[in-house]
Amino acid sequence: MNTFGTIFRVSVFGESHGPAIGVTIDGCTPGIPLKADDFTADLLRRKSGKKGTTPRIEGDIPEILSGIKDGFTTGAPITIITRNETMRSSDYDNFATVPRPGHADFVSRRKYSGFSDNRGGGHFSGRITWGLVAAGVIAKKIISPIIIKSTLIEAGGSNSIEEAVEKATAEGDSIGGIIECRAENMQIGLGEPFFYPVEAVISHLVFSIPATKGIEFGAGFASAKMRGSEHNDPFIDENGKTSSNNNGGINGGISNGNDLLFRVVVKPTSSTGVEQHTFDFNKGEISTLKVTGRHDSCIALRIPVIIEAAAAIALADLYLIDRGINGVRGQD
Amino acid sequence: MNTFGTIFRVSVFGESHGPAIGVTIDGCTPGIPLKADDFTADLLRRKSGKKGTTPRIEGDIPEILSGIKDGFTTGAPITIITRNETMRSSDYDNFATVPRPGHADFVSRRKYSGFSDNRGGGHFSGRITWGLVAAGVIAKKIISPIIIKSTLIEAGGSNSIEEAVEKATAEGDSIGGIIECRAENMQIGLGEPFFYPVEAVISHLVFSIPATKGIEFGAGFASAKMRGSEHNDPFIDENGKTSSNNNGGINGGISNGNDLLFRVVVKPTSSTGVEQHTFDFNKGEISTLKVTGRHDSCIALRIPVIIEAAAAIALADLYLIDRGINGVRGQD
Amino acid sequence: MNTFGTIFRVSVFGESHGPAIGVTIDGCTPGIPLKADDFTADLLRRKSGKKGTTPRIEGDIPEILSGIKDGFTTGAPITIITRNETMRSSDYDNFATVPRPGHADFVSRRKYSGFSDNRGGGHFSGRITWGLVAAGVIAKKIISPIIIKSTLIEAGGSNSIEEAVEKATAEGDSIGGIIECRAENMQIGLGEPFFYPVEAVISHLVFSIPATKGIEFGAGFASAKMRGSEHNDPFIDENGKTSSNNNGGINGGISNGNDLLFRVVVKPTSSTGVEQHTFDFNKGEISTLKVTGRHDSCIALRIPVIIEAAAAIALADLYLIDRGINGVRGQD
Amino acid sequence: MNTFGTIFRVSVFGESHGPAIGVTIDGCTPGIPLKADDFTADLLRRKSGKKGTTPRIEGDIPEILSGIKDGFTTGAPITIITRNETMRSSDYDNFATVPRPGHADFVSRRKYSGFSDNRGGGHFSGRITWGLVAAGVIAKKIISPIIIKSTLIEAGGSNSIEEAVEKATAEGDSIGGIIECRAENMQIGLGEPFFYPVEAVISHLVFSIPATKGIEFGAGFASAKMRGSEHNDPFIDENGKTSSNNNGGINGGISNGNDLLFRVVVKPTSSTGVEQHTFDFNKGEISTLKVTGRHDSCIALRIPVIIEAAAAIALADLYLIDRGINGVRGQD
Repeated sequence: MNTFGTIFRVSVFGESHGPAIGVTIDGCTPGIPLKADDFTADLLRRKSGKKGTTPRIEGDIPEILSGIKDGFTTGAPITIITRNETMRSSDYDNFATVPRPGHADFVSRRKYSGFSDNRGGGHFSGRITWGLVAAGVIAKKIISPIIIKSTLIEAGGSNSIEEAVEKATAEGDSIGGIIECRAENMQIGLGEPFFYPVEAVISHLVFSIPATKGIEFGAGFASAKMRGSEHNDPFIDENGKTSSNNNGGINGGISNGNDLLFRVVVKPTSSTGVEQHTFDFNKGEISTLKVTGRHDSCIALRIPVIIEAAAAIALADLYLIDRGINGVRGQD
Repeated sequence: MNTFGTIFRVSVFGESHGPAIGVTIDGCTPGIPLKADDFTADLLRRKSGKKGTTPRIEGDIPEILSGIKDGFTTGAPITIITRNETMRSSDYDNFATVPRPGHADFVSRRKYSGFSDNRGGGHFSGRITWGLVAAGVIAKKIISPIIIKSTLIEAGGSNSIEEAVEKATAEGDSIGGIIECRAENMQIGLGEPFFYPVEAVISHLVFSIPATKGIEFGAGFASAKMRGSEHNDPFIDENGKTSSNNNGGINGGISNGNDLLFRVVVKPTSSTGVEQHTFDFNKGEISTLKVTGRHDSCIALRIPVIIEAAAAIALADLYLIDRGINGVRGQD
Repeated sequence: MNTFGTIFRVSVFGESHGPAIGVTIDGCTPGIPLKADDFTADLLRRKSGKKGTTPRIEGDIPEILSGIKDGFTTGAPITIITRNETMRSSDYDNFATVPRPGHADFVSRRKYSGFSDNRGGGHFSGRITWGLVAAGVIAKKIISPIIIKSTLIEAGGSNSIEEAVEKATAEGDSIGGIIECRAENMQIGLGEPFFYPVEAVISHLVFSIPATKGIEFGAGFASAKMRGSEHNDPFIDENGKTSSNNNGGINGGISNGNDLLFRVVVKPTSSTGVEQHTFDFNKGEISTLKVTGRHDSCIALRIPVIIEAAAAIALADLYLIDRGINGVRGQD
Repeated sequence: MNTFGTIFRVSVFGESHGPAIGVTIDGCTPGIPLKADDFTADLLRRKSGKKGTTPRIEGDIPEILSGIKDGFTTGAPITIITRNETMRSSDYDNFATVPRPGHADFVSRRKYSGFSDNRGGGHFSGRITWGLVAAGVIAKKIISPIIIKSTLIEAGGSNSIEEAVEKATAEGDSIGGIIECRAENMQIGLGEPFFYPVEAVISHLVFSIPATKGIEFGAGFASAKMRGSEHNDPFIDENGKTSSNNNGGINGGISNGNDLLFRVVVKPTSSTGVEQHTFDFNKGEISTLKVTGRHDSCIALRIPVIIEAAAAIALADLYLIDRGINGVRGQD
């Protein structure tokens, strides 16, 4: 199930310590200007090496294998890969029998009968999201003039993100965070009520990003405490502009032209330098584990651009579906 | 996009005030005992007529059109319909030009160029979830011995649900709520990392239910304030049992055999008896609107069984996919 | 797998002797004029009751359950059913242990572990194609001005179709035939090279019609004897018109604007009045079988309209996909 | 639409003269022995360089990017690429304005508004089938003990294939051929009646191979001249063995355990050295064209292994679907 999308379709592949990771983007409109440089900014935002992120720094240079010619998309599937370079697989030798709590070590061995590549998390690694970011760069061009912005608004329970990260790093522990994502210049009418509403498509992609554990649209969980008369967003002009945005720009699963707005919670990275208890499947007893590999103390720092990509991919797919079914719409 | 699922596939159809609504379930294992009565309990739980729910009470009797013979599923697609009976469409005449805030009135007219059936919300109506509940009954049999339980744990910001509902009803307003869902006796290994992890599949279905605005797994949004050393769930025996469950029974998108746990927020019903402001597209000015039709003051009361159905459908699909790809697995 | 299509999606359900059969069409552009009468002509063409077709005559009246309002498609899924009326299931009692040669009796019992509904062929019955024809009526409107025409050009090896049918009927045996299908006013550019070329999509649907055993496009099997210089279709004007049509209007899997042309072979109906040998699974020995139910001596007579429907559904899907991805294209 | 399959899913990418071509295989059972050498035999069979095939000889060495570790499939998506090496793109400069008859030159320019990469046929090139063959190698392992064999049984209308090829090559022209494919040791019960019967899935893949123009199963087009009593395949033992095989091992779209049998027609390569007429879109008049690049005079020589791959991929997908839905079946 390594593909997502109906028309604008994204497929990822690769393992953290395999030869390369990559992505194929299919259903892309031909004639979109696209060159290798266009990927730089977003891939850099995702990259590690900043304070609070893993010291494993990959070149991450995208190599375009297909679908682009003379600086334009051709209409054929676009495949982009990047080589894995600085693997230290021995860091992971132990986890087969002493699975790290919170990690996929245990489930992947069971699901794949011991054949999964677990080095660096293998296909479960956050590294696979590199392909999502690359696909997001293309998706953003398709949905233009829609603009998507994601920000880490909270880390370790605090708005003072830099401080929180420093503290966690100093303690050798990890922290989570909350990311807010907003899309401006939204078009009216994106989304299909059953089973492809805006929220469903975005959340499907967001939960494919490792470490995400929750998503809320508009007022989200706070809606549970509101009255309908308070939660409803009154229309105030003929373009459907509303005076509040508790619905996050979505009514009945369809974009209403107001800003699309959602928040995602990222759990603290499972790998921490703190000694933990877990089960040793070899010895058949509870044991202690201290993860010594290179890790992010606040993976959430790197995720805003991935969330943007997820939103862009979702909207690009919804846009092409809508254009297919409804063509250029007349208005009421 | 009226179909969801890869192997166990559910398709819904119908409008609130059309002749009938229904569901087709495809990819169902043959030989599963199933008779019309099996649907009764869950359909009754979804039904209105209780305090806080709309006085429109439908018979909701399921008519099985295909796929079942002599009390067993046959392996052919199962189609089940129910007739719409007590429509009062005139209640909805006004909303074409004065769209209700928070409703699909506005977006559906734009998206479908004025051709959508908006009576009673049309295909956007919560009524369409009848089919999800029916499909859920079948899904629950497929995933046995897994047992799923959903409960409304909060309404209008209060745990005292009955009181909160009474108060809102008295005021002619509506309230939302939070539903908690738990699946016990979980199997290890359900879920596909990209792009079909447990969280993605469940959230995709959950956000197809009208009025849902957020979902969180395990510790969910509270994870943002936790340390990794605190959030991680230590394994304590050879079956993968963990001593805490902050991950909601899911690692790396794959079920780890512990209880699957998630919460969903339901917004207050958009239709309230309270007078609201909105835009009159005919007059081109802001106007007032008072919704007088029959509505739920706390739609969240009816949604737990739909959430159960969504979870069951998701797990049934994941189970059949896993059995297809991995067969009967050996263990490490 | 009861659904076909990417955007314009058709799902069928039902068994020959169940309560009803039907079809759901999703992804249909809103605002298409559609009323119950529109189905009459094509459903009549498919209907039995003519010389050479089964004396089982169903009312076949379509009941529209959803997706159409005030004579127009609404954009919501369209479900249409028809009740089964004149079943004589006792005709089929024997086939569980003495499966009819050429029929699905044997394989369906094995595949579904004995739980399949085999009365009248169950879900394997040609009767299920009723839904394809209904969907084809809608598809034809979407692809207008493309016009599709199918004709039975050969039956029992002869162009004198009426005679061939009469002879077979008199002998209590059955005959097959060849159907030619042509689509005029074709648009340039329909089809996606991998894996959704015109030929693949049409053949996928055509082979879902029971009794079809072969398909060829343009010169088809005769191509094997031609030189490239002879087979190539030279372009002769700026619209891409070609002076011959050995490629059946398709180059590289994409429509080139010339007539789409293909032929389908329909095998003789498996049910014949002639005594046949087959295995008796109860007695464990070869036995004789004489099928006494009501059957078509030349099922091919009823299939042209189903082939038209298959072609229309394929082209409608390809058209909406192309419009989604490529929008309104500029020309070279 | 570069992906085919439901569970066992194959995605291709690349252009003839781009940096690389490749394939991703998803849904592959973990623990299947697989090493780079396993691809050699089939890739060699597909390779050019023999008499009658293009003198462009690619290294075609597969590079495995993901999904395989220590000689076994891991359960993660498998991506395999090969670099394009000996491109002579200048051969193709002319075809933008003077499209080759029978080729995708014309339609691809229209469909993709002039942005397609047409060098060497681009994404329409037969070269893309390299990925199908690689995927077929894996599929064959999944469906073991089923064995698939394809043979070119006729070229240029003659059984004397070598002679026919030599003659065509001498004349600078091209010829087509007919390929027969047989699968032995078939399992009973593969295929889903609507819309995933064996014939539909195989034909969908076969028509994705450039130059195929027809397919027939069992007696195929000859069925049109047979009586039902003659065409039916009588069962003769308790395993479902039949005494004839006019149905090609398929009843009602489901494999019946007898040999799967079909034939495919391959048209003569469109590129021939013979001077042809075609339209010059620049000059707006009919012109002559002589194709001077490197081409196959009988592309059909290279296609048997691709047909095998298509059949293997189809059966692998049907097998995993069947195992998912029906588990390990009891027998009647």
